[in-house]
Amino acid sequence: MNDKRKILEVFENKYPDRDYTITHVAPEFTSLCPKTGQPDFATITIEYIPDLLCVELKSLKLYFHSYRNDGIFYESLTNQILDDLVAVVKPRYMRITAEFNVRGGISSVVEAEYYSDDYYDEDISFS
Amino acid sequence: MNDKRKILEVFENKYPDRDYTITHVAPEFTSLCPKTGQPDFATITIEYIPDLLCVELKSLKLYFHSYRNDGIFYESLTNQILDDLVAVVKPRYMRITAEFNVRGGISSVVEAEYYSDDYYDEDISFS
Amino acid sequence: MNDKRKILEVFENKYPDRDYTITHVAPEFTSLCPKTGQPDFATITIEYIPDLLCVELKSLKLYFHSYRNDGIFYESLTNQILDDLVAVVKPRYMRITAEFNVRGGISSVVEAEYYSDDYYDEDISFS
Amino acid sequence: MNDKRKILEVFENKYPDRDYTITHVAPEFTSLCPKTGQPDFATITIEYIPDLLCVELKSLKLYFHSYRNDGIFYESLTNQILDDLVAVVKPRYMRITAEFNVRGGISSVVEAEYYSDDYYDEDISFS
Amino acid sequence: MNDKRKILEVFENKYPDRDYTITHVAPEFTSLCPKTGQPDFATITIEYIPDLLCVELKSLKLYFHSYRNDGIFYESLTNQILDDLVAVVKPRYMRITAEFNVRGGISSVVEAEYYSDDYYDEDISFS
Amino acid sequence: MNDKRKILEVFENKYPDRDYTITHVAPEFTSLCPKTGQPDFATITIEYIPDLLCVELKSLKLYFHSYRNDGIFYESLTNQILDDLVAVVKPRYMRITAEFNVRGGISSVVEAEYYSDDYYDEDISFS
Amino acid sequence: MNDKRKILEVFENKYPDRDYTITHVAPEFTSLCPKTGQPDFATITIEYIPDLLCVELKSLKLYFHSYRNDGIFYESLTNQILDDLVAVVKPRYMRITAEFNVRGGISSVVEAEYYSDDYYDEDISFS
Amino acid sequence: MNDKRKILEVFENKYPDRDYTITHVAPEFTSLCPKTGQPDFATITIEYIPDLLCVELKSLKLYFHSYRNDGIFYESLTNQILDDLVAVVKPRYMRITAEFNVRGGISSVVEAEYYSDDYYDEDISFS
Amino acid sequence: MNDKRKILEVFENKYPDRDYTITHVAPEFTSLCPKTGQPDFATITIEYIPDLLCVELKSLKLYFHSYRNDGIFYESLTNQILDDLVAVVKPRYMRITAEFNVRGGISSVVEAEYYSDDYYDEDISFS
Amino acid sequence: MNDKRKILEVFENKYPDRDYTITHVAPEFTSLCPKTGQPDFATITIEYIPDLLCVELKSLKLYFHSYRNDGIFYESLTNQILDDLVAVVKPRYMRITAEFNVRGGISSVVEAEYYSDDYYDEDISFS
Repeated sequence: MNDKRKILEVFENKYPDRDYTITHVAPEFTSLCPKTGQPDFATITIEYIPDLLCVELKSLKLYFHSYRNDGIFYESLTNQILDDLVAVVKPRYMRITAEFNVRGGISSVVEAEYYSDDYYDEDISFS
Repeated sequence: MNDKRKILEVFENKYPDRDYTITHVAPEFTSLCPKTGQPDFATITIEYIPDLLCVELKSLKLYFHSYRNDGIFYESLTNQILDDLVAVVKPRYMRITAEFNVRGGISSVVEAEYYSDDYYDEDISFS
Repeated sequence: MNDKRKILEVFENKYPDRDYTITHVAPEFTSLCPKTGQPDFATITIEYIPDLLCVELKSLKLYFHSYRNDGIFYESLTNQILDDLVAVVKPRYMRITAEFNVRGGISSVVEAEYYSDDYYDEDISFS
Repeated sequence: MNDKRKILEVFENKYPDRDYTITHVAPEFTSLCPKTGQPDFATITIEYIPDLLCVELKSLKLYFHSYRNDGIFYESLTNQILDDLVAVVKPRYMRITAEFNVRGGISSVVEAEYYSDDYYDEDISFS
Repeated sequence: MNDKRKILEVFENKYPDRDYTITHVAPEFTSLCPKTGQPDFATITIEYIPDLLCVELKSLKLYFHSYRNDGIFYESLTNQILDDLVAVVKPRYMRITAEFNVRGGISSVVEAEYYSDDYYDEDISFS
Repeated sequence: MNDKRKILEVFENKYPDRDYTITHVAPEFTSLCPKTGQPDFATITIEYIPDLLCVELKSLKLYFHSYRNDGIFYESLTNQILDDLVAVVKPRYMRITAEFNVRGGISSVVEAEYYSDDYYDEDISFS
Repeated sequence: MNDKRKILEVFENKYPDRDYTITHVAPEFTSLCPKTGQPDFATITIEYIPDLLCVELKSLKLYFHSYRNDGIFYESLTNQILDDLVAVVKPRYMRITAEFNVRGGISSVVEAEYYSDDYYDEDISFS
Repeated sequence: MNDKRKILEVFENKYPDRDYTITHVAPEFTSLCPKTGQPDFATITIEYIPDLLCVELKSLKLYFHSYRNDGIFYESLTNQILDDLVAVVKPRYMRITAEFNVRGGISSVVEAEYYSDDYYDEDISFS
Repeated sequence: MNDKRKILEVFENKYPDRDYTITHVAPEFTSLCPKTGQPDFATITIEYIPDLLCVELKSLKLYFHSYRNDGIFYESLTNQILDDLVAVVKPRYMRITAEFNVRGGISSVVEAEYYSDDYYDEDISFS
Repeated sequence: MNDKRKILEVFENKYPDRDYTITHVAPEFTSLCPKTGQPDFATITIEYIPDLLCVELKSLKLYFHSYRNDGIFYESLTNQILDDLVAVVKPRYMRITAEFNVRGGISSVVEAEYYSDDYYDEDISFS
């Protein structure tokens, strides 16, 4: 398990018989551009359907803070957050949306999804 | 029947032959964080298709007020409201959406749904 | 025919070969609470696909005004407007959405639909 | 060909192998009420998938201006614009949306669509 | 390869096993009207699902700048950007949306999509 | 004292040594047009600096309701509300702003102020 | 008296002892460009402190409609409306603000004021 | 010193030679209506020019929480918060603005200011 | 007279006896950064009180277009536009506001004013 | 000169004879809370009237970045930025506004101004 994943804590989902959705929106994410060392800023949104575990909110905040002085590209960042959270929380479904501030007159969004093996696309109710 | 459920009152649905939807939005919900005792604030949205009963609006307000000094987690709160209302109102379909204010730079939304046994997903028209 | 329905006037739909949609939004609806006698305020939205008739706009306004001093519950109001308009306009499809102002810190929306017998859900293009 | 249609000019679609969409939004439309002679104001939106022709923008503006002193009802206006544009542009798909300003406390929207014979509903990607 | 395509640079997609989406929004696009020589202004949005390559953001900015003094029609511009990016980035899916500022009281949007041969419409999750 | 003024109730201002301001915004005001009998709708804003009395909020609501079936012009309504409240509450300063909904494509605002004899314009801090 | 002024009707101000303000906002104004004959669109705002007369709202609407097919420049239009209304209504103070839609990528506002001889700038409370 | 004042903590202002302003906006304030026992909700804004002391933010939060189960009227609440903060922080200037949620279709704002003896109105730069 | 000033055309102010204000807002301004050659984008607002002349709108548009391929700093651009317009239009008062798009995470505004010799600050009514 | 001040670079103001204003808005400021080590986020706005020097924009960006891993209180941060910029840029007037994100349900703004000795408050035209 990598060091960042160790920051993430979970608690038991008390309603595992019901498919329901949890969304966390973090508009204060910041990391560094790996090329220039300049700060990047983003809003990270996590949407998931828990299976047996939920992510603990304060540990999620600290997990995001751990990127503060890391140099990482937009696409890698989004996929890595998804991989880390899926590894620790083991959800039925999860989607990460990272909305990056304007750089060079262009704003960017990267969005990646995970489906557990016994879960189908048509069951997802996020809109 | 738990004490909170006793607060909820219902009245007869006069149009049971028609599937129609009722939405109540309560932006003044507040409870306490079970860990820190600090207040939490949320907007609770109830959307449902009534069967034979509708929830009475003033009793719904008092039901929400009953959480004012309770310590309860986001996920439990949302599912418990759904369970209470389903038990009392016995709707064909119900969805609870709880949008929580920013804590530690992160805002959260929990959403849970109920379908009665003889009701299918493709019949739902909420958007 | 009840008295309110007599207020509603119609005119001939000149394009009956085409399924098209008409929407009227009336943000100035007011009636009375049947319990307290206090005024209620709502925005009523009518969306329909005409068959052979269209509702005349000025008569629709007067129909809404006729509720000004009536005591009526949210759920009954919405369904009664739908029943009255369907009876007079005989549309292929109609949806009534009534959005009520905040009462006791809670705002409410009631929405009801009508499909004529030879009309299917998957043909509706409102969004 | 009626006089209004003669105002409309077209140019060749250089990408006929690809289904793509063109939208024009005209918020400065005005005509007259045929009953009262009072001005009506609307925003007209044209969305279409071109086949071999595209509508020329300046001629479209002049076509809209030609309604300035015409008396015409909402429903007829919307359907007539659709008929005129379909006759001249011969698109694969077209939708006209006319949003009318408040009259008597009520605002109105009329929306009509056209599908060419060899075109199916499920191929449309407007949202 | 045309000169504009040479401006575009790509980098390796490190997560090719996952279908995920990348969006770039460029509100500072400007070119010239081929008829009048007057400036046109647009917001260009690129949404795509990468296969083996991603477009490099700074080169994308320079690619957009290369249109600054070119005369080009709305419909051609949108389709040409799609063709250039598809040729260089070889995505699984791509959509270009060009929203043009008001001209003659009318604003316009052109939107074109590309699907690679082994990719189906129902897999796309952009909303 | 006219009948409407009798509806208004007051309570003692416990901080008469301090000039402070109280604002009440009532977006649900409705009366009738004295010419046509058609309903008018307005948002009424009361801003005042109390002297020895404050207006009681529930009685203010009932005072506004008393206009529901009265025919009255915009200008008279605004000045009459000011006169009634000044007579009953005897404030140091009061301003009534009445914002009326669109009629005939035109919206209107009427605003009137009262200063008690020993009060000067430059002391007012509303913005 | 010119023909347009004859359209304007007035009624007696019943509160001449009080300086109060009346605002009418007309977002549906349209006239023609005197150079090109193309339609212009504007929102006209009238703010005034009445002396002995108020402008009647329906006649104001008809006065605005009278410009529908007139060719007139922005600056002349604004000043002429002010001159006409001052001549007929004889207010203590009046301000006309005309906000014109985008033409050639530029939007424009013209604003002109009138003070009666015995009225001073520092008494005006519009904000 | 009353009990609530004891909750408030201060720290030394390190820039006492400069008049500068500090604003804290607390949208999560809640207390009870002294008549009905029902919850009230408000946004409290504190603006002040410090002299030798600044209010500590966390203690301010706890001070606001202390009202959670208190019954108190709008006007008293606003003036009491001002009195408490002035007594503890001893600022050169302070303004409290309390914006209360809709009750009975009416929303309310109460605003009170304090000036220290050697401080003049014209020095205040809040806007 | 420099070349840019030659582009600007004027027409006679027909209301020179009245101080009134004219505002032109141009959100489509673009020039180049003199350091990097990269495009800059800005909204330029011109507010002025004419004396004997008004600036002609189409020539103003062309004047702005003349900067399209010029390299110029924000502060120089704003002051140069003011100097050019004052030299040609000879207004009683003029203000130029240039709002520049985000560069390096920072947006900028530069604002400069001109008063003719016989004109005083307190006469200006822009807000 | 402290280390942070060394980061700031200036260039010559070419229009020193004119009082004009420059505003820079930096919504991507982040530092650390000196108590908890947790990140703080703010939007910093600099408004100034230059004398002989202007602050160079890229150096300003780097100056802001230098706070990324510093622990500093809101009030000190705002005043220190003002002191640093005044020391290096030597403006006629400068105002720093720092708007901090929500912490503990409360958002905060600190604002400080500097006037050079031969400059008066009434000359400032920021609004």
